[in-house]
Amino acid sequence: MSEEGLSYQTSGVAIGEANRAVRSFADAVRSTYNFNVLSDVGTFGGLFSGQFPDISEPILVSSIDGVGTKTKVATMANSYFGLGKDIVNHCVNDILVQGAKPLFFLDYFATAKLKAEIVSEVVEGAAEACRENGCALLGGETAEMPGVYSGSECDVVGCIVGVVDKPKLLPTQVENGDLIVGIASNGLHTNGFSLARAALFEKTNRKIDEPFLESTLGETLLKPHRSYLSPLWPLLQEGGWIKAMAHLTGGGFIENIPRVLGADVKAVIEKHTWQTPPVFQLIQSDGNIADEEMYRTFNMGVGMVLMCESEKAIPLVERLNDCGETAWVIGEITKGARGTIVV
Amino acid sequence: MSEEGLSYQTSGVAIGEANRAVRSFADAVRSTYNFNVLSDVGTFGGLFSGQFPDISEPILVSSIDGVGTKTKVATMANSYFGLGKDIVNHCVNDILVQGAKPLFFLDYFATAKLKAEIVSEVVEGAAEACRENGCALLGGETAEMPGVYSGSECDVVGCIVGVVDKPKLLPTQVENGDLIVGIASNGLHTNGFSLARAALFEKTNRKIDEPFLESTLGETLLKPHRSYLSPLWPLLQEGGWIKAMAHLTGGGFIENIPRVLGADVKAVIEKHTWQTPPVFQLIQSDGNIADEEMYRTFNMGVGMVLMCESEKAIPLVERLNDCGETAWVIGEITKGARGTIVV
Repeated sequence: MSEEGLSYQTSGVAIGEANRAVRSFADAVRSTYNFNVLSDVGTFGGLFSGQFPDISEPILVSSIDGVGTKTKVATMANSYFGLGKDIVNHCVNDILVQGAKPLFFLDYFATAKLKAEIVSEVVEGAAEACRENGCALLGGETAEMPGVYSGSECDVVGCIVGVVDKPKLLPTQVENGDLIVGIASNGLHTNGFSLARAALFEKTNRKIDEPFLESTLGETLLKPHRSYLSPLWPLLQEGGWIKAMAHLTGGGFIENIPRVLGADVKAVIEKHTWQTPPVFQLIQSDGNIADEEMYRTFNMGVGMVLMCESEKAIPLVERLNDCGETAWVIGEITKGARGTIVV
Repeated sequence: MSEEGLSYQTSGVAIGEANRAVRSFADAVRSTYNFNVLSDVGTFGGLFSGQFPDISEPILVSSIDGVGTKTKVATMANSYFGLGKDIVNHCVNDILVQGAKPLFFLDYFATAKLKAEIVSEVVEGAAEACRENGCALLGGETAEMPGVYSGSECDVVGCIVGVVDKPKLLPTQVENGDLIVGIASNGLHTNGFSLARAALFEKTNRKIDEPFLESTLGETLLKPHRSYLSPLWPLLQEGGWIKAMAHLTGGGFIENIPRVLGADVKAVIEKHTWQTPPVFQLIQSDGNIADEEMYRTFNMGVGMVLMCESEKAIPLVERLNDCGETAWVIGEITKGARGTIVV
C-alpha cells in the first residue's frame, strides 16, 4: 500500500455491497410481514406486537442455530437458496417440539467477501420458508469478515421466537409402555455434513454433480430441511395426541431423544421399522461408518420423533399419513436409565 | 484413511468437546436466570414468560448481530472473555435506541476446531454482561465447522429480545433546531476492526502486545463494548428527555444517525466538540485514512447519540455527567435532505 491511504473498502469490507444486498432482498423480507410487525427493513431492532389475546398464559420459546457445514456443499454446488429455507425450518422444528408456533425469525449471514447475489439467495430462501410457516422475517445481519472465513465459505445462522400457551407446553411426562412414532425426513436436513462430506468427497472421490437417483448428489444433499409445523400444529391444538417430541438434529437419535425423557425411562428404536433412504446408505458405505455412529449423527430418514400413549400410536400414524406425511411406529419407551438404544 | 472407518470425530467434529464446554459454562448461564425463565440449559428452545403485567401495550424488539473481525484481534491476543460481553452489550444498545429493555439473549459461537476453554470464556463473558443488563441468557449454540473458518478464527453472534411499552417507543420525530448529545464510548466497541487491523498490523507493523497508554494495544482494542442501559433507562422511564437515539455501530456517524431521522432533516456533527481518543488518532495516522472514512467507520469516541429539544440538551448532559458518564452537545439538527454532515 505504501503511501496510499486506507479505506474500509481497501481493508476488505464492501459496505456498498451489503447495502446492494439489502435493497435486493427488502421486498422478499416485507412479504413475510403480518399485522403484528410494527417496523420496516433497516431499523435498529425489529418490532413485533407482544400482545397475545388468544393465549391464556403465553410463554415465549426461542432458539438459535446454524446450518453447519451444509454451507460447504452449497458452496460446492453454487446453490444458496436452500440454506435460507434450511435455517428457518430447522428453527421452526426446534421450538415446535415444545408446542410453540413461530412468531418471528432473524437471520445472520457472514463470509469473507460479500456478494450481494449470494446473500439475496439465502435471505429470499429464508423469506419463502418464513411465509410458509406464517413467521415474520423481522431482522437480520450481513457480515463481511475478511480473514475469518476460508475462501468463499460462509456461515448461516438464525434465531427464532415463538409462543406456546402454558397448558400446551411440551414435553409432558413420557412413561414405560409409551410408543414412539417417527415422521420421515426428506434427506440429511442440516446435520452430519462434516461426516457426510468426509465420506463422499474425501474418502470416496465423488463429484457434487454426479447423478444420484433422479437428480444429482449435490441436489440430494442440499434438499432443504423440512418444517413439521403444518402436519403437527392441528394435532397440538386438539391436544392429547403427543406427550413429547424430539427434533433429530446434530446428535441424531442418541443425543436428541433423551432431551425430552425423564431419568427413569429410555427409548428403544427398532431400526428395521422404516426404510433408511439411499443417501444414508451411500454415506455409510463410502465412509465405512459404524451403525452406532450413523444413528448418533444422522436422522437416518426420520426427521421428527413423537412419543404417545400406546393406544394412540396407530391412529396418530394414520392421521399423519392421511395428510401426506410418511410416519411409522419406530419404537417404544421402556424402564431404564435415560438414553436411546437402537436395535 | 484407507480401510479405516469414518466417525464424526475423525471427520473433524468433536461432539465430546462441545458437551464439555456446555458443562463448563452451564452455571454461568444459570446465574443470568430470573423468575421469567421457565427452562433449564439443554432444552430445544429456551422458555421465557410472555406476560408483561406492568406494560400497557408491549412491543417486542429484537436484533441479531455479530462482533465482526474483533474476533481476529481476540485470537491474536488469545483473550476471548470480552467478545461475550461485546455481543451482549452491542445488542442491548441496538434495542435500547428504540426504548426497549432487554428480556433475553441467545449466543452463537462457531469455529473450525472447538476448544471448550475458548467457548467457555466467550459464554462466561456473555453471562456476565447479561447479569449486568438484567437479561437472561436463554439459549445458545456452539458449532464446529472444519474448513469453513480459517485456522483458529471464530465468529460470535448474538440475538436479543426486549420489550418496550408502545407509548415509549423511539424514535419520535426529530425537528429542525433539536440538539444532538453524544455519550462517550470506551474504545472501538465492535466496529471498524477490519480497517483498524489493516492500519495497525498490516500498513504499520505494530505488535498486539506493544505498550499503549497505560496498557497494551491489544487490551485497548479489545475493551468490551459498553452498555448504555444503566444511564439511559431512568431517563427513558421519566420520558420527555430523548426524542431519538442512534447506536454508532458499523457505518459510524454517517450511516447510523440518518436511520432515526425523517426525510427532511439532517444531522450536523461538530467534531471539535469532543476529544477524539488516542486509539482512533493512531489508527488514522497509521492508515493515512481520510477524515470522512473515519467518521463513516468508527464511533470516534462517541458510542451513543441522543437527539433532544434544544432546551433539554444542557440539563441532559448534566444528568448524564452526574451519573458518571461523559457526555457533550456534539451537534444539531437542521433542515436538509436526510443524512449526516461532520464539520
